Amino acid sequence: MLINIKNKSIFLQKNIMQDTICALSTPSGIGAIALVRISGKDSWAIARQCLKSSKKIQPRVACFGNFYDKDAVLDQVLITYFENPNSFTGEDMVEISCHASLYIQKHIVEVLIDNGCRYAKAGEFTMRAFLNKKMDLSQAEAIADVIASDSQASLQLAMKNLRGEFSGKIKGLRASLLHFASMLELELDFSEEDVEFADRQSMQQLMVELHHEIELLVNSFSVGNAVKNGFPVAIVGYPNAGKSTLLNTLLNEERAIVSEIPGTTRDTIEDTVIIDGQTFRFIDTAGIRNSQDVIEQFGIERTYQSIDKAMIVLYVIDAAELENMDRITQIDDLVYSIDMSDKKLFIVANKADLLGTVLQRNRYKEFDIIYLSAKNKDNIHILIEKLKDFVNTSTHQKQTLVSNIRHYEALKKGLDALNEAQNAFDNNMPGDLVATDIRQVLFHLSEVTGEISNEDILSNIFSRFCIGK
Amino acid sequence: MLINIKNKSIFLQKNIMQDTICALSTPSGIGAIALVRISGKDSWAIARQCLKSSKKIQPRVACFGNFYDKDAVLDQVLITYFENPNSFTGEDMVEISCHASLYIQKHIVEVLIDNGCRYAKAGEFTMRAFLNKKMDLSQAEAIADVIASDSQASLQLAMKNLRGEFSGKIKGLRASLLHFASMLELELDFSEEDVEFADRQSMQQLMVELHHEIELLVNSFSVGNAVKNGFPVAIVGYPNAGKSTLLNTLLNEERAIVSEIPGTTRDTIEDTVIIDGQTFRFIDTAGIRNSQDVIEQFGIERTYQSIDKAMIVLYVIDAAELENMDRITQIDDLVYSIDMSDKKLFIVANKADLLGTVLQRNRYKEFDIIYLSAKNKDNIHILIEKLKDFVNTSTHQKQTLVSNIRHYEALKKGLDALNEAQNAFDNNMPGDLVATDIRQVLFHLSEVTGEISNEDILSNIFSRFCIGK
Repeated sequence: MLINIKNKSIFLQKNIMQDTICALSTPSGIGAIALVRISGKDSWAIARQCLKSSKKIQPRVACFGNFYDKDAVLDQVLITYFENPNSFTGEDMVEISCHASLYIQKHIVEVLIDNGCRYAKAGEFTMRAFLNKKMDLSQAEAIADVIASDSQASLQLAMKNLRGEFSGKIKGLRASLLHFASMLELELDFSEEDVEFADRQSMQQLMVELHHEIELLVNSFSVGNAVKNGFPVAIVGYPNAGKSTLLNTLLNEERAIVSEIPGTTRDTIEDTVIIDGQTFRFIDTAGIRNSQDVIEQFGIERTYQSIDKAMIVLYVIDAAELENMDRITQIDDLVYSIDMSDKKLFIVANKADLLGTVLQRNRYKEFDIIYLSAKNKDNIHILIEKLKDFVNTSTHQKQTLVSNIRHYEALKKGLDALNEAQNAFDNNMPGDLVATDIRQVLFHLSEVTGEISNEDILSNIFSRFCIGK
Repeated sequence: MLINIKNKSIFLQKNIMQDTICALSTPSGIGAIALVRISGKDSWAIARQCLKSSKKIQPRVACFGNFYDKDAVLDQVLITYFENPNSFTGEDMVEISCHASLYIQKHIVEVLIDNGCRYAKAGEFTMRAFLNKKMDLSQAEAIADVIASDSQASLQLAMKNLRGEFSGKIKGLRASLLHFASMLELELDFSEEDVEFADRQSMQQLMVELHHEIELLVNSFSVGNAVKNGFPVAIVGYPNAGKSTLLNTLLNEERAIVSEIPGTTRDTIEDTVIIDGQTFRFIDTAGIRNSQDVIEQFGIERTYQSIDKAMIVLYVIDAAELENMDRITQIDDLVYSIDMSDKKLFIVANKADLLGTVLQRNRYKEFDIIYLSAKNKDNIHILIEKLKDFVNTSTHQKQTLVSNIRHYEALKKGLDALNEAQNAFDNNMPGDLVATDIRQVLFHLSEVTGEISNEDILSNIFSRFCIGK
């Protein structure tokens, strides 16, 4: 069942890692400087040919030189040679820092290819770093997350993963499981003698602890995903309750980075706002009201879908409506029809400036009611503080957050296998059955860090990288 | 009259060069790697603060490190320190190679600014390189040309200038002039003794030679400019002579890079095509014919303007029309009304496939007639060869080409002053008058290489650079 990464990597190396690859690694476009990278055993030989240089170059020392296209100087460049294994990929590498004209960038790569390089595939540099054991798979994946990060929170999460915090966690779990499995297997070796090397109770306790830790990781995915891609906040309420005014005010208040992503449905617009380094994805929805009109019900259905995907729901009502008993009943129906088990609901009583006094009501005491005026920007900071508090509570520093769906799925499978193992163990099933289940858990944990992998999975992961990384 | 660059640069340094500057130097966008550069006396102190490193770093050696934003790791970076004067700017410099996420690129620059850097102005790195005498002004300008280059020919011209070929030429001229001036001034010192140290005839000869060389440079500007921005080729002729077909065929034939630049007039479209590394700017014009119609004459006027700006005119006619005596007279009028002194005219007899035999005609013997079929792509290669031959003849390797309009204008003023000097010399005017004119020539040559300059000129030149260069 277990495929050893050692054999696997030898196989992969034969296929992939014989070539010396090159690519433009800086963003494409015109600028002052661009960087072209070469990796592979012929890196320096090829670079030397293009530099017409026989001079020995010290590893890691930036040197000035002329880069030739046949006999003409194509550019004056800075060149740095990294000797294996002390490079990003673990192979010999050369970095060429050239002038960032479109012509030069294109032609330096072309000349390198003419001299024996192959154009790198997306993510191939990082894949080589992984195959050469410079990092594990979850760290390699974190590089793509680092590059894609657009907020402080998403970057910090990706950096933690890149620096190996998540890998360390998984490795710790694996070590505990291996210890557990080895105890079981020792018993099997002596099974005829009916010896119990492992104390059943402490083994049971260990399984419970492991189960708890893996479950925490699995459950952290919704928050981890929100940190990475933005906390989804559905803004719902009656038409003219002031939803759009509220959204615009939120954008203004924070002088936030704003982008407009057309939603999956025609009536739903997403705007992302970065508040205090954390991205929020505000989903502006069609107005909700109880209606018999078929078309209107269709729109409301879509609003419910948005609520379903949200982690936070801002229910916007006209503050004056809190006086109106009929309306209150309708709102009640709606509020109580939302499954709030995994969501946070805030009631936003908008247009509070039109009320003489701030009303005290007990009806929604289990929810937070925020009286504000989106138009006058009164009390907006209270709403923002509530949003920040929610995020801070969700993402408390010590917990490791899973933000990669591949990791989430592997961990979920691992958890299922652990459940099986626990059942078998609790029902005094034979030790070899329990051991098989434990091996299955180990298998799924190894998938996360890439000890167990295959070419399909790897090419699927790395194809999502940019070229040059 | 002469402002010494030494004093000037001290003045500029006081104003500009006290700050330590930073900027993103790679093209903006998402990619694998980005490069942020720091230059100035505090470069290493500021970088070290952000790296929280007390380790001594070897100059030019790329080192791995964590870049901090307060207490959080913002990114894992490669850092290279360049110790003055061995850097691009001649100052202490630091290059930070980071992950090219938009967030990281923006925040690394922000953290550097928080720690004491100033955001660099456009071209400020290169301006400092110039002020620190790492290159002269024409070489600094060549860097902008290198970055803007989009064809082999424009790049090669810019690289020649960057490597100092043009500067060397100007310096040679200056040395000759200085020698000349010193001879004259020596005479002035002994004027009361009526001694002639300089042999008048050889001095006259030297002036003629200098005049010839500067004139060659001035006259090279139209070709230099064409190499840099593309050779302008006006395609003119009657409607339906096949102009557009010819253009499309030229594009297809060469699988060229094609761009569409809307012309200054609504009827004129420019398409640039790179043939054999040289950009051609084909200007498609409205049809020409003798007409009394006012509006039509207006269109024809615009066509004449295009012809005026062109270096090459492709006059496209229907090959069959060469048989028609009336048409021939009209074409004659037109061909002879074009001032061809600085242009090359090719008569393109299109639709030659419809003629049974290739006609032999003497009428346009002083022009080249190319019989071809744009539609069938017959003999297009002959036209292309003619275009290439023209360019090769215009740009023969040995001549130094002026491609910068500032240099062209300074050289033209220098040539005017030299004319004055020659007149004064030939008319036996007093030696101090001749010397003054010669000093004026020297002044204009020094403007080119930047020995004489002022802040306005410099900021005008460098503001056209990109930020980070």
